[in-house]
Order: sequence, then structure tokens, then C-alpha cells
Amino acid sequence: MTLTEVAHGTLAGLAEINGTGRDASRGGYSRHIWQPAELELREWFIERAVRLGLDVETDRNGNIWAWWGAPGSNAVVTGSHLDSVPGGGAYDGPLGVISALDAIARLQSTGFTPRRPCAILVFAEEEGSRFGVACLGSRLLTGAISPERARGLTDGDGIRFDAAAAGAGLDPAHIGRDSEALERIGLFIELHVEQGRGLIDLGEPVAVASSILAHGRWQLRFTGEGNHAGATPMDGRRDPMIAAARATVAIRDAARAREGSYAQGSRATVGRIDAIPGGTNVIASTVTATLDVRAETDEETRALVSDIEALAADAATKENCAVLVTEESWSSVVHLDPELRSQVASTLGGIPTLSTGAGHDAGVLASVVPSAMLFVRNPTGISHSPDEFAELDDCLAGVTALESVLRELLQ
Amino acid sequence: MTLTEVAHGTLAGLAEINGTGRDASRGGYSRHIWQPAELELREWFIERAVRLGLDVETDRNGNIWAWWGAPGSNAVVTGSHLDSVPGGGAYDGPLGVISALDAIARLQSTGFTPRRPCAILVFAEEEGSRFGVACLGSRLLTGAISPERARGLTDGDGIRFDAAAAGAGLDPAHIGRDSEALERIGLFIELHVEQGRGLIDLGEPVAVASSILAHGRWQLRFTGEGNHAGATPMDGRRDPMIAAARATVAIRDAARAREGSYAQGSRATVGRIDAIPGGTNVIASTVTATLDVRAETDEETRALVSDIEALAADAATKENCAVLVTEESWSSVVHLDPELRSQVASTLGGIPTLSTGAGHDAGVLASVVPSAMLFVRNPTGISHSPDEFAELDDCLAGVTALESVLRELLQ
Repeated sequence: MTLTEVAHGTLAGLAEINGTGRDASRGGYSRHIWQPAELELREWFIERAVRLGLDVETDRNGNIWAWWGAPGSNAVVTGSHLDSVPGGGAYDGPLGVISALDAIARLQSTGFTPRRPCAILVFAEEEGSRFGVACLGSRLLTGAISPERARGLTDGDGIRFDAAAAGAGLDPAHIGRDSEALERIGLFIELHVEQGRGLIDLGEPVAVASSILAHGRWQLRFTGEGNHAGATPMDGRRDPMIAAARATVAIRDAARAREGSYAQGSRATVGRIDAIPGGTNVIASTVTATLDVRAETDEETRALVSDIEALAADAATKENCAVLVTEESWSSVVHLDPELRSQVASTLGGIPTLSTGAGHDAGVLASVVPSAMLFVRNPTGISHSPDEFAELDDCLAGVTALESVLRELLQ
Repeated sequence: MTLTEVAHGTLAGLAEINGTGRDASRGGYSRHIWQPAELELREWFIERAVRLGLDVETDRNGNIWAWWGAPGSNAVVTGSHLDSVPGGGAYDGPLGVISALDAIARLQSTGFTPRRPCAILVFAEEEGSRFGVACLGSRLLTGAISPERARGLTDGDGIRFDAAAAGAGLDPAHIGRDSEALERIGLFIELHVEQGRGLIDLGEPVAVASSILAHGRWQLRFTGEGNHAGATPMDGRRDPMIAAARATVAIRDAARAREGSYAQGSRATVGRIDAIPGGTNVIASTVTATLDVRAETDEETRALVSDIEALAADAATKENCAVLVTEESWSSVVHLDPELRSQVASTLGGIPTLSTGAGHDAGVLASVVPSAMLFVRNPTGISHSPDEFAELDDCLAGVTALESVLRELLQ
């Protein structure tokens, strides 16, 4: 099946949005909350939902709801997100939204009438690529982040979240936990492309999620003494770039050491290093490294972060620098609702279960309502990259699975 | 003496431009070629020069000439630059330009009539902060960089030098070696704030330069495999950030080792690391590190770069990554004209001589015309930083020295 064939049938949405938010320098897509590409995707989603007869509303946290029938309690809610990491792939997020649209279209085309309220939910800023906190839309909705903290988040240009929210038509004074919206959700189900190699190994196109690693983000800020790169002898330098580089290698080694001793879930990644002032002929005065840490339990994650704090301090001391470690976000390990998971798996003929290291809005919602996830096979295991890919036949198997689950749950 | 007092006398220029190009995020000043702050400084300089009765022209490479009397051959030319590193100090560059304006004003006020042509020369893009090649204006003027290569340089936003030059009113087809301009220069003298601690140790306010370290810039581009930070196990990663971090530490160690074995001139600095895509929850696919290397001889500099190429390759191999090392600029060691240096030192009562690790336009011009430099004491040795500083009494001693040298050379 080719993209052209697809463009006229199920999964046409993948083709419809594949020109939106392309990142010429990184490759792939950069679709960040309330920037032009993401606003275009919001418009696109609303138009597609309206075409299915759904009633669309944007909640006070910037998440979009599209209701099939009247909104009400005990609703079956499905969805995912449309935003991306910088230079991300085409599937991470949009596949779940498009599959939800297609599953409802299929149910409608068979004359199916839902006996419970049903909605598609598109979460805002799932990747945290603009304001630094992943799953920001679901965290605000559930109260997992305080409105005060969210309002003060800033993007790379120094724009505050509250200013950006106001610019997008929200009232920043009214962001935060939305009890009315939450009370309507009976259960939540998110379909997502897998971001590892689990389904390759299982030889299956679709699985149901069991758990999500505990994870969080930290910032490591090393400070030293800026100076001239040519006129300053090597001895006596207090170069925070060296401290950050030492720490970056040590962080990887610490995660690998714990991975060896503790199942296989411990991960730590430095994805970006920013030097101030950042001139080629300048010894930096401040260097900031981003840190992403995950592990199979909250305790193991905290223990790894504690190791990292110690080794970052050691790296800083060795270079006569200082370091400040700041937590930016935290998500406890999530065990998705066992009853809902069993029901989904049995509806789908006993498909396998898989745990994941990737955070999802479903993991945030799971603290409030029964939540489940369906994963669609990723034939390379690569995600958060322009090389992310899923076979169309597997994506279609995903839509079919979601359709079956919705039919079962809504009847 | 306070800045307010100064604002009404010699060195008033320091106060006049201290609001231009302030960098709110880095501190200090960011004044990059043909961007608003630098354009404002150009306007400011032209107005100040015109007020002294000088005839101003911008040459075809974007350097500004201000002639005292008619342009002609065997001219005594003095000057420096107005652009800065990102978040640089107030003195690096502007002090030389302002001291030249003030020295000529003082000569004029005593009724002195020059018997040789005289000009102030303001060089474009000395720091290379926008297009990556230091001393770009003097390199173009002297032919030390080919016009083809300069035209193709790009800034951080992907704007080419030729497009930016055209936007500033230059004809990009006519950049390059300017024999007519060069033939008018009899000798060149640049006053500059010192960027090390030499004058502190000597207990003197002003020195004359002996030599400039060989130096150059390289880019180290590490490539690996981008992927999801949470879903990708530590084993099997090909993370170019780890390779770049390993190399960054090894580069410093290599420079320090050579510093120990070979006088004290070997320096190597990674001032910036850029990750693509640069997401917090993303293993980078490409990481670029900037490299600045300097040493007392060309051979020693090349040998250190050769060490660095080997250790970068080793760091890449260890992480299953690749690395490409590209030279961006090169400047051979410069021994400034001994005869002119002796003349300057003796005019100034036998002031001391100092070598420097910092590159300067005077070093580029030295390959074509006799050139000299005067350094003004830096009481901390810090430069390329918001903390760069010079005492006003030392700056005034610099103006007095330059005035004396010009009087001697022009009579």
C-alpha cells in the first residue's frame, strides 16, 4: 500500500499533514505548541472532526476535545497529541489522533451508535519541546502541575507560558485542574507508535501497554569563569564546558552501571548542551546540560539522579566550577489499569503486553481515570528522529484494533 | 576619574556607546556585523569622525576608513574594530577605535599638521562572531581569504555572507583583496586592551606587542543515531553527545600536556556544543563542537590539531559514531615588525614588549605592511566576557601613548 492509495482511504490524515512543520535544518518535523505549524495542525484536526459531525471545544488548558454525540459522564475518551520534539518523526502523536478519527469514521460508516459518550482528546505540549515540561496539557488538566508553575515556564526566546497562552486565546488565570472535564472521562485509551523494539521481537503489529518507566527532567547548570580562548593559559582556567563534558560521560556510565545491576530500565541522557556566551574564541562562563532520567521504579530513578548529582558536583569541583541541579519535571512509574488492559487484550484476541520507557499523556491520566495504551510496531525502534517509521499495514492494524476496542467499550 | 567625568573629555566615546548592543541574556555586549547594534556603532563612528573633519569611506569589504587630510600613499593608519564576541566586554575593539579618534582630536587641538596621510581604519567582523572567520574584514582586504570562500560563509540563521553584504550596500562580486587600499598604507598601528595578565605582572599601563600566537578555528562534527531518550536502552546507543564530551575533555588534556612540554603557549578550547535535534528527551543524531587552537609556532599548532584529530576519532569510535574535522580559519604565527616595534617603544620611553595569544587585525595586516600594536593593561586578565575591564587611567595612558606615536610618525 502506498501513501497515494492511503490518501484516499484510512490514514489519509498522515498524508494530509505531512507538509506541515517540516524542519529544514534538523530533518523531520518541528511542531511546537502555539507556533504556526502546530496551530495549522489544530485547525486541520478541528476541520476533520467537524467533518465527522463531532462537536469541538478547546478546554481552558489548550487541549482539544471532539465529542461524538453529547458530552457526558462515563465517556470513552481516546486520543494523543499533535506536537513533536524538534526534528521529530511523522508518527509520534499524530498516529494516535488520526487513528481515533479513522476508528470513529469506520464505526459511523457501519451505522454503529455509541451507548456511552465518546470523545477524541488532543493533548497540548506533550513533548514539552517549547516550555520544557512533558505532558503539560494533561498535567494541567489533572492538576499534576500547579497553574502557578506552568504560568512561569519560559520558552527558548524567554516568552512565558501565560503570555503564550493568552496569545492563543486562553485565559492564563484559569489554567489548571479541570474537575468538570475530568469527571466526564470514564476511561482513556491512547494509541501510539512504539518507541522501542518490543513488537519487532514479538513479531506482532499491535500490543497493549503494561507500565511506563518512572521519568523526569533535570537541568545541570555549571558555572565557571568566562575568558579569552587565546589569551588565557590552560592552567588556572575554570571552564564549565569541561565540567559539563566530564559529567556527560559520567552520567552515561552511571546509567549503564545501574542498567547492568537492575533489570534493564535505567536510562540517562544529555540531549543538549548550551554554552553562554557560546563564542568560538571564548571560554564559556556558564554551560547548561539537559538531563532525562528513567528507571523501572521511582526509587531506582531517584537513586540514579542522586548518583548523577554527586558525579556532577565532582566534575564541577575538579574544574574549580560550581553546579546547580534543578528538577524540571517528574513522573512516577505508571502501572496501567490491569482490568482495562485485560479487557482490551481479550477484545483483541489476546495481544501481548509491553512496558515502555516513553512517557505519555495516558500515563498522566492514569492517576485519575482507568487508562490504557495500544502500541503499533516500529520496525526500527527509532523514534524522536526523522527516521521514525511505521509500516502502513501495521498502522491499519492499529486503527482496526482501536475500532474494535471502541466498539466493545461503547456498546 | 568616573565615567561621568570622562563623558565630557577624552574617552567620551566609551560612555557614548555603552548602551548599544547590550546582551540581556549573556550580559555584556553582542555587536555582530551588519546587525542593528553594529550598524548603530558604524553610524556613531562616522558621525564622530566627520565631527573631527575626517573624510569617511567604506571600502568594498565593509571596513570603514576615516582620512585626516587627503588619502595618499605611505599613510600612517591606526584603528581596531567595533564588533564583539557574543556577550563580550566594552573594551575589546572599541578602545582602539575611540583612542584613535581621541589621539587625532588631541593632535588637532595642539595645531599639529600631519606631514604624511593619516587614517583611522575600523575593521569589519574582527571576532568572526557572525560568519565564523575571525578578522574577516582584514583577511578580505589583504587577500588572506578568497572572495569565493567568504561569499559562501553562512551565519547561524543560514544567511550567506554575500547576501548580508548586499543587504549592507556592498557589491558581493567586488569583495576581496584591495590593492589600491593596501598600497596607501605605509604602516599600521592598533591599540587594544590586553587580554591576558602580562601588564599586571610588569606593573605597567602600556606595552608594545612582539608576536601573536599561531591560531585557527576548526569544527568537529560527530554523527551517531538519534533516538528516543526513554525508550532506547543504554547498550547499543550511538550517542554523538558522549563522543563530543569525551573529545572535549581529551582536547583540554592534550593542550595542557603540550603546554607542559613546550613553553606555555599551547591552548585549545571548545567554546560551544550544538546538538541536533537538541530535544531534552532525544538522543542527538549530530553534535558539533567548536574548536579554537593556538600555539607559539605554526608547527606546534598543527601538531596539537593533529593530536586532537586523532583523539576525536578515537572518541567517536568508542561510541560507534563518526567525526569530521573541518578547518574554518588559520593564522600563522606573527612576529610584528621589529623596526617599527623598536621605534614605538623608544618613542614611549622604552615601554616593555609583550606577546599575545589573541588574534588581531594587526596580525593579518603584518603580512603586507609593517604593523605594531599597543596593549593597555587589563587588571583582571579577563576578556571576551562581560567582566572585561580596564582602568580609565590606563586607558588615558593608552591615548597618550597613541598620540605620541602618531605625532612622531606623522611629523
